[in-house]
Amino acid sequence: MIAVLKPDATREQIDNLTTWFEKRGLNVQLSVGQLSTVIGLIGDTSQIDVDLLEGLDIIESVKRITEPYKSANRKFHPDDTVVDIGGIKIGGGNFQLIAGPCSVESKDQIIGIAQSVKQSGATLLRGGAFKPRTSPYDFQGLKAEGIEFLLEAKELTGMPIVTEIMNTNHLPMFEHVDVIQVGARNMQNFEMLRELGKTDKPVLLKRGLANTLTELLMSAEYIMAGGNKNVILCERGVRTFETQTRNTLDLSAVPILRELTHLPIVIDPSHATGIARVVKPMAMAAAAAGADGIMIEVHNDPVNALCDGAQSLTPEQFEDVAGMVRKIREVVTA
Amino acid sequence: MIAVLKPDATREQIDNLTTWFEKRGLNVQLSVGQLSTVIGLIGDTSQIDVDLLEGLDIIESVKRITEPYKSANRKFHPDDTVVDIGGIKIGGGNFQLIAGPCSVESKDQIIGIAQSVKQSGATLLRGGAFKPRTSPYDFQGLKAEGIEFLLEAKELTGMPIVTEIMNTNHLPMFEHVDVIQVGARNMQNFEMLRELGKTDKPVLLKRGLANTLTELLMSAEYIMAGGNKNVILCERGVRTFETQTRNTLDLSAVPILRELTHLPIVIDPSHATGIARVVKPMAMAAAAAGADGIMIEVHNDPVNALCDGAQSLTPEQFEDVAGMVRKIREVVTA
Amino acid sequence: MIAVLKPDATREQIDNLTTWFEKRGLNVQLSVGQLSTVIGLIGDTSQIDVDLLEGLDIIESVKRITEPYKSANRKFHPDDTVVDIGGIKIGGGNFQLIAGPCSVESKDQIIGIAQSVKQSGATLLRGGAFKPRTSPYDFQGLKAEGIEFLLEAKELTGMPIVTEIMNTNHLPMFEHVDVIQVGARNMQNFEMLRELGKTDKPVLLKRGLANTLTELLMSAEYIMAGGNKNVILCERGVRTFETQTRNTLDLSAVPILRELTHLPIVIDPSHATGIARVVKPMAMAAAAAGADGIMIEVHNDPVNALCDGAQSLTPEQFEDVAGMVRKIREVVTA
Amino acid sequence: MIAVLKPDATREQIDNLTTWFEKRGLNVQLSVGQLSTVIGLIGDTSQIDVDLLEGLDIIESVKRITEPYKSANRKFHPDDTVVDIGGIKIGGGNFQLIAGPCSVESKDQIIGIAQSVKQSGATLLRGGAFKPRTSPYDFQGLKAEGIEFLLEAKELTGMPIVTEIMNTNHLPMFEHVDVIQVGARNMQNFEMLRELGKTDKPVLLKRGLANTLTELLMSAEYIMAGGNKNVILCERGVRTFETQTRNTLDLSAVPILRELTHLPIVIDPSHATGIARVVKPMAMAAAAAGADGIMIEVHNDPVNALCDGAQSLTPEQFEDVAGMVRKIREVVTA
Repeated sequence: MIAVLKPDATREQIDNLTTWFEKRGLNVQLSVGQLSTVIGLIGDTSQIDVDLLEGLDIIESVKRITEPYKSANRKFHPDDTVVDIGGIKIGGGNFQLIAGPCSVESKDQIIGIAQSVKQSGATLLRGGAFKPRTSPYDFQGLKAEGIEFLLEAKELTGMPIVTEIMNTNHLPMFEHVDVIQVGARNMQNFEMLRELGKTDKPVLLKRGLANTLTELLMSAEYIMAGGNKNVILCERGVRTFETQTRNTLDLSAVPILRELTHLPIVIDPSHATGIARVVKPMAMAAAAAGADGIMIEVHNDPVNALCDGAQSLTPEQFEDVAGMVRKIREVVTA
Repeated sequence: MIAVLKPDATREQIDNLTTWFEKRGLNVQLSVGQLSTVIGLIGDTSQIDVDLLEGLDIIESVKRITEPYKSANRKFHPDDTVVDIGGIKIGGGNFQLIAGPCSVESKDQIIGIAQSVKQSGATLLRGGAFKPRTSPYDFQGLKAEGIEFLLEAKELTGMPIVTEIMNTNHLPMFEHVDVIQVGARNMQNFEMLRELGKTDKPVLLKRGLANTLTELLMSAEYIMAGGNKNVILCERGVRTFETQTRNTLDLSAVPILRELTHLPIVIDPSHATGIARVVKPMAMAAAAAGADGIMIEVHNDPVNALCDGAQSLTPEQFEDVAGMVRKIREVVTA
Repeated sequence: MIAVLKPDATREQIDNLTTWFEKRGLNVQLSVGQLSTVIGLIGDTSQIDVDLLEGLDIIESVKRITEPYKSANRKFHPDDTVVDIGGIKIGGGNFQLIAGPCSVESKDQIIGIAQSVKQSGATLLRGGAFKPRTSPYDFQGLKAEGIEFLLEAKELTGMPIVTEIMNTNHLPMFEHVDVIQVGARNMQNFEMLRELGKTDKPVLLKRGLANTLTELLMSAEYIMAGGNKNVILCERGVRTFETQTRNTLDLSAVPILRELTHLPIVIDPSHATGIARVVKPMAMAAAAAGADGIMIEVHNDPVNALCDGAQSLTPEQFEDVAGMVRKIREVVTA
Repeated sequence: MIAVLKPDATREQIDNLTTWFEKRGLNVQLSVGQLSTVIGLIGDTSQIDVDLLEGLDIIESVKRITEPYKSANRKFHPDDTVVDIGGIKIGGGNFQLIAGPCSVESKDQIIGIAQSVKQSGATLLRGGAFKPRTSPYDFQGLKAEGIEFLLEAKELTGMPIVTEIMNTNHLPMFEHVDVIQVGARNMQNFEMLRELGKTDKPVLLKRGLANTLTELLMSAEYIMAGGNKNVILCERGVRTFETQTRNTLDLSAVPILRELTHLPIVIDPSHATGIARVVKPMAMAAAAAGADGIMIEVHNDPVNALCDGAQSLTPEQFEDVAGMVRKIREVVTA
């Protein structure tokens, strides 16, 4: 960690600060320049609060040299993590298509969609049983029954399932769920992350609407610090001033995360854009950018879907998208 | 609700859509223009998904006429809500200063600060027992013990206390807490909001970093829909591209929320800016803008504070700020 | 245009407003509902200021039904515009690779890079002669001499050239330039746009850092309203809170603009991300998303480049990227 | 300047980089740690491109220690700049109220408003003659005639005038204008800034919609580098995701700029919020935050104003606001 002092810092203030750092077990290297004095700190700086330092009168700015995440950091774990989801592998060159409806609405619906997307090449089935909705008056999902229907679809098709958790008190219901999804709004629900860290279930962690990639990795770190290394990251759009799309899909997250971390990276173009006819070009772009997986909403009857129909593809549209994604993957991996 | 159709919508498509709306109990008014056809929908449109409609091929855009929040809406509840916090009133012309440390660190610390800020004019004591931290390796608060220390400070000074909840499983520990704070990162933790709606405790609901004022009111609605009308809104900065301050304090939230809702509005300049020396002018500005309360971090020893020292005032600085805020309030309420 | 009135609008206020609209030649349709009254306006509403209306006491909200841009609007010009740049076509299925250095630094440099990128498949040569720099102390480009060097490179290689204008007083120097670039910071320099509208030169119009796609189209409209229909749109990243990349590349701009306008769409992954090693995946993603062109910075000696070396590819790296983009194009156009 | 190298940087790479810095006249201090090597650069680093360095394979991150602006920097010019506008002083404790219509519409209009706002306490008259409008079809101002009308109002009332320039070719028309305004959209029109630097006219420089405070100061630096030290900074809202207000007024810009620069700081609550009834609380908040001036739109007939009527106050409303601002100023300066 490096701290730059203000030009008017007095000798006494600098000595006090140095003592304060040394009391915290840090080795302090002082470098006095014409315009400013720079302090280099060597040792375990993870306990030092950057905000606190920057607020001190004599400090101009502070910079961490090492990222505050360890388990998720490629520097310390150079090899790609491959997450095994009931035999389906993601990461380390393994690419998967995740598809299914926003909400599970009935047993017939989820089974029908599952069979259809499997035939088109999807390898994992998604579907919401517990639904986070902005309004308390909106449909909140079939809950426990939704999970049962997903499990029946899994049994029938053999596809592992991905579904969102909203309350860790519900964990017992997720016993046979293959991948637990943490939604964007819960990305910094640290109590939830900590609980999921105690399980060994693969977790699909969605990036929050206004969270940086570093914060996403810090949230992954919460799960991994508890012992659960099976974290899959998911970019699903960030909030900007543009209103033509629901959010702005940040595809550069793929190559940037690839450098920072060894964890698999999935792109969700359906939630990011909120518009079904934009999903195809964005799914193709995600494959071209090198994503390890793409998650797409598919509904047999988008217009009547209970939620988020606007961004759902029909099974026919999904088949088209899946085919194009495959071809792009061939180029990428050739 | 109004839907504008694309110019190439066919007669058949329009008929299908009309039928679909009517099946949902809505009265449909069609208005055919030269460039576009407009559909007006009368009835309970709260179950209609705007995103779904906007995703339909024949629809250009959709606009809600009525806000999706009811209980929080000033239109339906014109009188200001006054929240009573153990005899201390906020809202409807009642202004309160909330002060205290970011984290409760020891019994002596919280009692010392409580006595000091009370003397300077603070009427409510804040202090974090459960701390949401970006990193799993940072100090997470004294938890149950922190709440005990807060309660002792309350007993000694008579000040009602405000402290954050991170997991509704902890609710029994909050039995004697006066105001439960929902942090920015949990603003859309709908399960938590719903649980708090079942209590009758005042809730201080902080705006999320990237949440609109409408979303803030929808989250208030979650709590109120459960029967708990004691919601206090808190603006604490939104995330922008500017890096000189931690977040960008959106003070226009005060007059805008004043129009939209009857709930009290508190400003937190400490978390918004993250810089102690910016807290004073922003607290004064918040008072001038008409806030019902201001929440300020005060610490007896900011440099050694376990978290967020950068934004904490010393008790002496707080006394100065409190005095200036009082003078501004005199101008505002004259 | 549709205006929704507040529930407490009086009969007299509504009559006054109706008269005001009718004086402006608009046909007013009133629709009185239980909770609100809706006014539909038919006629030429382009002179009505939405902001003004929304500021009126009795008005809840206003919505335009028709986009305020006409010449750039696909609704009125369904066929793709194909811009002819000295025989090189872009748009309407024609894809072009634009490459070259951020700044022209010397005759040898620009000729060397031009020959190299041409061999790798670039069809248009870019290079900055006038450079917009945040700091007045930074290198500002070779100016007139830079344009001369570009023209020599053009003569030698036959590649049409693209270069940025910063002052329309410089237009005479651009006589033999093939495409005039308007930089992101000048996207709303309306005086410049108007001047360029009087020429017949192709204009590459870059999206501003914080401008919506609608605003980009309004700026195109400024140029087109003057008679110059040869506008090429360029997405080069928008400003967000994320700091890992210089800006956030908004690739969904491609399919969205495709619907809204008939103009060609180019993606600039170099400026958007600011990181050379992220350019390849983003260029591939741009091709997969259906862009009509990709503009890439190439420098023979990136480390010693006078500006923006960080985002420049070496000629060898560009050859690799160009090959991959070609393969992705084959998939897209198959 | 400090550069942190990646852990895998080889000895040879480090030597090459060191040589490269030394060739540029910089003194290089190497500090080798366990996890990373840090390079300190002493000397004139203003010519070093941070982006370029950050793009190098061996570099993790780079941090400037000194701000890239000199003339605008309080560090080098600790005393407040006081700008003299025809005898009216702003900055260094001098506070001014600037008022007038968005657009000059007629001689009578501007004279009437000038007399009215002067009586209410405004000391400078604003009014747009050249209007930047998003749409080429909107009213673009009375241009030369507008300036003439402003000058007549000035002669009659004695109030110095502030009006926006859109093209430096128009400079001769601004000979008798007292303060030249640079609009938000031209904040980084560097050619314009440079031209204004050659004059000695006070310049009111508005912050761009998505520009950081550092960028605002760099644009001030462009003007000052040419010799013109009479720069007044103006915050007028930044673009965020919130849609209830036109932009988000960043009032913390006042205390932050106060530290970074010696230049006067003006707040424009009218353009920032776009809503007349929000102007009063925001003007009061701006005064409380310590602004050196407030610029407010006033129109005798807001509903019929040719542009931006939504944000204009009536003269009566302005008198009320001016009175409240005066009272807040008394508290601030007591």
